[in-house]
Amino acid sequence: MSQTIQGVGAAPGINLGTAIWWRKEQPTVIAKSITNVAEETAKLEQAIQQAKEQITALRQIAADRMGEEEAQVFDAHLAFLDDPGFTGEMKSRIASQKKNAEAICQEVTEEMSSLMASLDDEYMQARADDIRDVGSRLLLLLLGKKPFDPSLLKAGDVVIAEELTPSDTAQFPEGIAGMVTAKGSKTAHAAIMARTLGIPAVLGLGAAINQINDDDTVIVDGDKGIVTLNPDTAQEQVVRTQIEKQKQAREAALKEAAADAYTADGKRIQTFANIGSLNDIEIALKNHAEGVGLFRTEFLYLESDHWPTEDEQYQAYSKVLSSFGERPVVIRTLDIGGDKDLPYADLPKEENPFLGHRAIRYCLANPDMFKTQLKALLRASVHGNLWIMFPMIENVSEIRATKALLNKCRQELAQAGIAVADDIKIGIMIEVPAAAITADLLAKEVDFMSIGTNDLTQYTLAADRGNEQVAHLYDAAHPAVLRLVKLTCDAANKAGIVVGMCGELAGDPTMTEILVGLGLHELSMSAGTIPEVKQQVRAVDSAKAKALADKAVQLEDGDQVRELAKQKQ
Amino acid sequence: MSQTIQGVGAAPGINLGTAIWWRKEQPTVIAKSITNVAEETAKLEQAIQQAKEQITALRQIAADRMGEEEAQVFDAHLAFLDDPGFTGEMKSRIASQKKNAEAICQEVTEEMSSLMASLDDEYMQARADDIRDVGSRLLLLLLGKKPFDPSLLKAGDVVIAEELTPSDTAQFPEGIAGMVTAKGSKTAHAAIMARTLGIPAVLGLGAAINQINDDDTVIVDGDKGIVTLNPDTAQEQVVRTQIEKQKQAREAALKEAAADAYTADGKRIQTFANIGSLNDIEIALKNHAEGVGLFRTEFLYLESDHWPTEDEQYQAYSKVLSSFGERPVVIRTLDIGGDKDLPYADLPKEENPFLGHRAIRYCLANPDMFKTQLKALLRASVHGNLWIMFPMIENVSEIRATKALLNKCRQELAQAGIAVADDIKIGIMIEVPAAAITADLLAKEVDFMSIGTNDLTQYTLAADRGNEQVAHLYDAAHPAVLRLVKLTCDAANKAGIVVGMCGELAGDPTMTEILVGLGLHELSMSAGTIPEVKQQVRAVDSAKAKALADKAVQLEDGDQVRELAKQKQ
Repeated sequence: MSQTIQGVGAAPGINLGTAIWWRKEQPTVIAKSITNVAEETAKLEQAIQQAKEQITALRQIAADRMGEEEAQVFDAHLAFLDDPGFTGEMKSRIASQKKNAEAICQEVTEEMSSLMASLDDEYMQARADDIRDVGSRLLLLLLGKKPFDPSLLKAGDVVIAEELTPSDTAQFPEGIAGMVTAKGSKTAHAAIMARTLGIPAVLGLGAAINQINDDDTVIVDGDKGIVTLNPDTAQEQVVRTQIEKQKQAREAALKEAAADAYTADGKRIQTFANIGSLNDIEIALKNHAEGVGLFRTEFLYLESDHWPTEDEQYQAYSKVLSSFGERPVVIRTLDIGGDKDLPYADLPKEENPFLGHRAIRYCLANPDMFKTQLKALLRASVHGNLWIMFPMIENVSEIRATKALLNKCRQELAQAGIAVADDIKIGIMIEVPAAAITADLLAKEVDFMSIGTNDLTQYTLAADRGNEQVAHLYDAAHPAVLRLVKLTCDAANKAGIVVGMCGELAGDPTMTEILVGLGLHELSMSAGTIPEVKQQVRAVDSAKAKALADKAVQLEDGDQVRELAKQKQ
Repeated sequence: MSQTIQGVGAAPGINLGTAIWWRKEQPTVIAKSITNVAEETAKLEQAIQQAKEQITALRQIAADRMGEEEAQVFDAHLAFLDDPGFTGEMKSRIASQKKNAEAICQEVTEEMSSLMASLDDEYMQARADDIRDVGSRLLLLLLGKKPFDPSLLKAGDVVIAEELTPSDTAQFPEGIAGMVTAKGSKTAHAAIMARTLGIPAVLGLGAAINQINDDDTVIVDGDKGIVTLNPDTAQEQVVRTQIEKQKQAREAALKEAAADAYTADGKRIQTFANIGSLNDIEIALKNHAEGVGLFRTEFLYLESDHWPTEDEQYQAYSKVLSSFGERPVVIRTLDIGGDKDLPYADLPKEENPFLGHRAIRYCLANPDMFKTQLKALLRASVHGNLWIMFPMIENVSEIRATKALLNKCRQELAQAGIAVADDIKIGIMIEVPAAAITADLLAKEVDFMSIGTNDLTQYTLAADRGNEQVAHLYDAAHPAVLRLVKLTCDAANKAGIVVGMCGELAGDPTMTEILVGLGLHELSMSAGTIPEVKQQVRAVDSAKAKALADKAVQLEDGDQVRELAKQKQ
């Protein structure tokens, strides 16, 4: 008989597959006295070396499949393996306590992670989880035990687990049908991974998860947060029909993806790709991106152990520009601070980093560092169609200061006889509420504006997008956010400049009609959703879309807006 | 010869006085072996007891002079004196190491504060400063040494110091003319204290401060951030004239303060007081507040070691309501979270607490706790003119949920036969940008709205008001903030409800004309500035004010707005 279990819908979509438990063994360790300290230390060092190799390989897989940002968690793991307070402490205890490496490893991992977890600080608690992840990897290597073998997973499987770490999800093969866990929530790291990979996920089932056995047939409904166990034939048929319909729609969209997108009444809407690393270029081209609406430059800084040189940056920018030829490539200057730290940048820890010294604020305060990036951009401009975009702008004087710095770079390059394109477009992100509210003043200073709905939403609603406790309040479709989008579009259209959107909202096909109705010219998104959004654009009638948008901004909350958007589909 | 030193203007105003150095001795401690552990422990315990008495006395002085919020830093100091990891550790080391209490005290203070300071977390670093403050107090008591004697300070003195802690400023007598320190910045705790006390302050002079000697005549210009040493007769005369003018203006304002404020063309603008504790009631009445525009209820929770009972709250609310008779008293429900923690509330540490689970969000998630406050308010309503205000509202459903809870409380009280006033007004704070942007939707649900510019500014500009690094961006006079004020006023005026302002901007007399021009009916501020703002209101012509406000919202930044406002004075 079929049975349903309610959890938290953490990644959208519905799918059906075969359950397979990802079991995690808690190995038993027995403390023993040792006499040969050198031998025991060598054993530990070998395990550390093996762990480094495993993690480096995982990092590469994660970067390839999910992008640079998701892969960075493994850098923290690698750093712990060289930490004097962690592996260094293990070595000195082997010498002082003359105990076996396994016992010492378990002891130090436990102490260090407990200490961090006790600090009542979300950041430190996440580090505590990292320590546990690395510590248990080391321990398994020392014991010669194998963890769950991910090669057992195959396409069509639904992964069932108590909890999944980034180390785990990075090892998923292509075609995993769903993800179900006992712990976790919508904002857990596993949930973010699932959304990036496009795998439907239901998390937070609690003890009810134990009703699921290996080889059970399972329907995972990530939209409703429901897991159906051993569905009957009728239920299975409904889901298979739904999946088939989704597949066909996707194939139809892909077939027409190569053509540029115009609304039914002939208005061009550009669909661009967001790019977070050089690996994303190929995916963007494959999905027929009409350009790049957001090239994040952070990966150059995050991957490096030093400030990236002008040449290192020039190589990367040239690569993306030449890959897109005549098509526009919007490169955003460094957006560091907030939730992104650089070990070599000496950023202070702030009480509210999202309201702190980040992005253009940090760059203007460190002009030499910033000039290196600006010069690299100017030099690369000859290889394609460069649009430079500045993040976190909130007033006119920041734009003027930035443009002055850019002109200085231009002059210095000219003096050195280095060629720079004449027609570089200069634009800004609209992500601070003040920028949207005064978009009429800012529009006079730039060639284009791009609305970053992720930050704009969290500031407008005063809800940190990474905080589970206010996750119910964070909604980019909130009428207040849409009103700011409209204000920005109206200002841009009046000034005769281009206005786009590069937040997550831009890649939601159910919202396409409303977004076009608000007045956007360009939508930039994860490359994978471009074909579907193009399909949506082609179905839009501009006048009806405007009426729909006008209705949306009068609604009470984001749920009502999404409901309205769905009714129209 | 006169000499000027540039620092950071941290509290406004100009004054002239006699320099007096607040010197802090770093006592020398010699470690000695001891034999009588009991005796040494008793010595330490006596010092702890004395420290508690000193700190409790300081706390009282601070609460009386600066209000409950400023006084809370001393609760942290008291808590450390009972902390097993601090004084507990001292006792156990006396027993185990058999060393004198002075050496142990210095050692533990140093270790614990260094550990906290090393954690690269702003919160922990502030706690490290607290530990050092408490530790040096204990050490001086153990050594039988006297710290700088604050009774040496007298009216007319300018206090010169390397650095000033809250323990120090709390001991200032009335009439201190100015404050000058080597360390510190605009957002340092000492700066906040100086602004609260109305003492002009210039901080961050660095080594240049050593040019100032005891008994030098000093001009402290807190507006320009300049200290003038030994001014010549002409300079002195200029300042004395300025001070005299300020004094006369203040006296003139006080003379007319008893009358309600009307603009020159006869429009009533209510000037209300912000109140943070019951001590503030008297100051508000003395300054002829026409009502209370913001009664913060946090002090009831912060002063307590348990959730305040309905009766405890009822007493406080009845007191303030009956003190103001027929005049409106706007009581804001609990605004906890953000930068305000409660030891007994088990609030999790958040990455961005200002964008987190605070105020109405926390209250709606804890309805039993919230009902206690609502019932206390309803019961107290019979003693005066109660207006209840909900903080951090961002959409209609939060208002509806809150009103439903309030109605439930009303019913329960009715069933218990307890009287409640019929005509309680229900309103909301406008402090989340979304609320201002959709004020037209929210206005339909309430009797009044009050704009909290402090939070509204930090969200609109994405600049934490406590973060020194973005202090240059935080400005409530930014045209984006003023546009949100205008949106809110327009919505309120259209809906026919009252609209006020209770952030710091409301108490800035240079901004009064623009604020009236934006459409506000009521301004609520620190009681001390009410007479001056009333004077400003009386000089306003509504039509001219509207023209001025229209001009202000078209300017580029807050500096331009303040310049415009000053030109008109």
